[in-house]
Amino acid sequence: MKPLATILLDHGSGGRASQELIRNLFLPHLDNPVLACMEDSALVDTGAGRLAFTTDSYVVDPIFFPGGDIGRLAVNGTINDLAMRGARPICLSLALILEEGLPMEDLQRIILSVQAACRGADVPVVTGDTKVVPRGKGDKIFINTSGIGLVDGDVQISAMNARPGDAVILSGSMGDHGITILTQRAGLSLQGDLTSDTMALHRLVRKMLDEAPGAVHTLRDPTRGGVATSLNEIAEAARVSVELEEGDIPVKPEVGAACEILGMDPLYLANEGKLLALVDKDHAGRVLDIMRSLPEGADAAIIGRVTAGPAGRVVLKTIAGGARIAPSLTGEPLPRIC
Amino acid sequence: MKPLATILLDHGSGGRASQELIRNLFLPHLDNPVLACMEDSALVDTGAGRLAFTTDSYVVDPIFFPGGDIGRLAVNGTINDLAMRGARPICLSLALILEEGLPMEDLQRIILSVQAACRGADVPVVTGDTKVVPRGKGDKIFINTSGIGLVDGDVQISAMNARPGDAVILSGSMGDHGITILTQRAGLSLQGDLTSDTMALHRLVRKMLDEAPGAVHTLRDPTRGGVATSLNEIAEAARVSVELEEGDIPVKPEVGAACEILGMDPLYLANEGKLLALVDKDHAGRVLDIMRSLPEGADAAIIGRVTAGPAGRVVLKTIAGGARIAPSLTGEPLPRIC
Repeated sequence: MKPLATILLDHGSGGRASQELIRNLFLPHLDNPVLACMEDSALVDTGAGRLAFTTDSYVVDPIFFPGGDIGRLAVNGTINDLAMRGARPICLSLALILEEGLPMEDLQRIILSVQAACRGADVPVVTGDTKVVPRGKGDKIFINTSGIGLVDGDVQISAMNARPGDAVILSGSMGDHGITILTQRAGLSLQGDLTSDTMALHRLVRKMLDEAPGAVHTLRDPTRGGVATSLNEIAEAARVSVELEEGDIPVKPEVGAACEILGMDPLYLANEGKLLALVDKDHAGRVLDIMRSLPEGADAAIIGRVTAGPAGRVVLKTIAGGARIAPSLTGEPLPRIC
Repeated sequence: MKPLATILLDHGSGGRASQELIRNLFLPHLDNPVLACMEDSALVDTGAGRLAFTTDSYVVDPIFFPGGDIGRLAVNGTINDLAMRGARPICLSLALILEEGLPMEDLQRIILSVQAACRGADVPVVTGDTKVVPRGKGDKIFINTSGIGLVDGDVQISAMNARPGDAVILSGSMGDHGITILTQRAGLSLQGDLTSDTMALHRLVRKMLDEAPGAVHTLRDPTRGGVATSLNEIAEAARVSVELEEGDIPVKPEVGAACEILGMDPLYLANEGKLLALVDKDHAGRVLDIMRSLPEGADAAIIGRVTAGPAGRVVLKTIAGGARIAPSLTGEPLPRIC
């Protein structure tokens, strides 16, 4: 196949095309052992402890949506990437690319939202940058947040640590963020209150790690590409298979209804306040109880298990009794979801 | 005066309008002692040592220019922001916002340039992110790099530490980057080889701090807004005045000639491989010798001194024997300079 000559929207999907760009262009040239891990955060050893370091640019459209806005998303998303390595988030950076003509009122509203999210999470913005591009060379506002976290000496969370037998736990319902953005963008008004699930998960993770030490092997927040893509990445990194029980996967009725109307599969929709935990099966019940004791994990459920099947395979056992393979996302159903 | 209703290009100039946005909107809402320092990097105490943390988005237009490109700029610029707090840079993040349709060849060229800059500086990219926006919603490529550095226990570099009597040292000639971008953008072909000075300065800083411990009070790389704006910021932070000798300020003949033709003042042009050092006067000669011993500081010169005059004032003593105040940049002569 001839290599692609230009960047496609698909390269930003978080699915297969994104992964190919990373593997074929970024990793070969920027290679080093830390980057090669391809986790939500990098772990850097400073000699005086381990740091988690992560970065994400947010280009969501629309910038305001039910349940949040680009500012809140940018704070929570980066905190979550740190938490998925078991890190305690300590600070964030905030870099804005503004389009000339952005209403000052919109910027103020977004900064207030950043403030509220930082206060709520107790993680400060300590450094920032502002650039302005001429009208038509950007789109209202793009935000990059990077974050630093501290990783306790005994914490070892990695996609590579998933093992056959592990329970797959999802912290709550699927697809809320993705379907909210999709309906907003399409100008649809559907029955039921669709709202983004954007939420910081570091306290939930802290409680899981503190109260069930050693039980959690892998954490991942299923954002772009959804639960199916995240599990494919984990299954590949750990050289295992994953079996999901369709009937056990929490989906809100209004999200399910919207997905049916729009022909979307909730397994591939983005989430911004949910995590997947792969947990030692003997401690899965305990971890589930811990998760359900906090609002962030109130709807947590065991949705499947890790098996010793072919590396990188995710199988969905359907309610009807069949089974189908759920590969990584291909194509880009919804650009600028986050 | 009525507050502005929209974002102007001027808000991204790095000059007075940028500072007002920071003071009136960002600081009041995101306030914390670390952010309030408003230095090139934040210093964060982890309990096991001090970290420097910085972020910058690069939106330079054109993305390729004589002497570099947006990739090289993004690596060197963020390394320099760490170095300006006396930190040893340990790692970078790399977040790309790509416009649909960007030629893959351009992306490859930029990634190779990032690779070369990282290798040259011996600072790896350890984490990254890629987003794609539809055609017309961005402009080819925007890059955010954030960086982490370690700060030795005895290092205390800050704009607030400048003291009356300090020598003001500039590490080399002024305006090379700004005038290069300006002429490229205008499609001008002028006599002489104008090239960007983009360069990593962390080794220069290391040598200055190691070989003249305690002598350097303040470091700043005069990027957007140029030398005049950086010195205004320092003079304000340290509650001092600065006197510059116009005749001692190094400007390359071709840069000087281009500035005359274009009506630009080199004092306000961006630099991407130069630093200002405010140094104890008794050690200024020694620091100058150290700087000149490395290629990055070969053309270093003492260009003025700190005085006990009115806080925040920068005075330029002209070659003709007069004196004029050199305020912070107002207006935006050149959007998307970095």
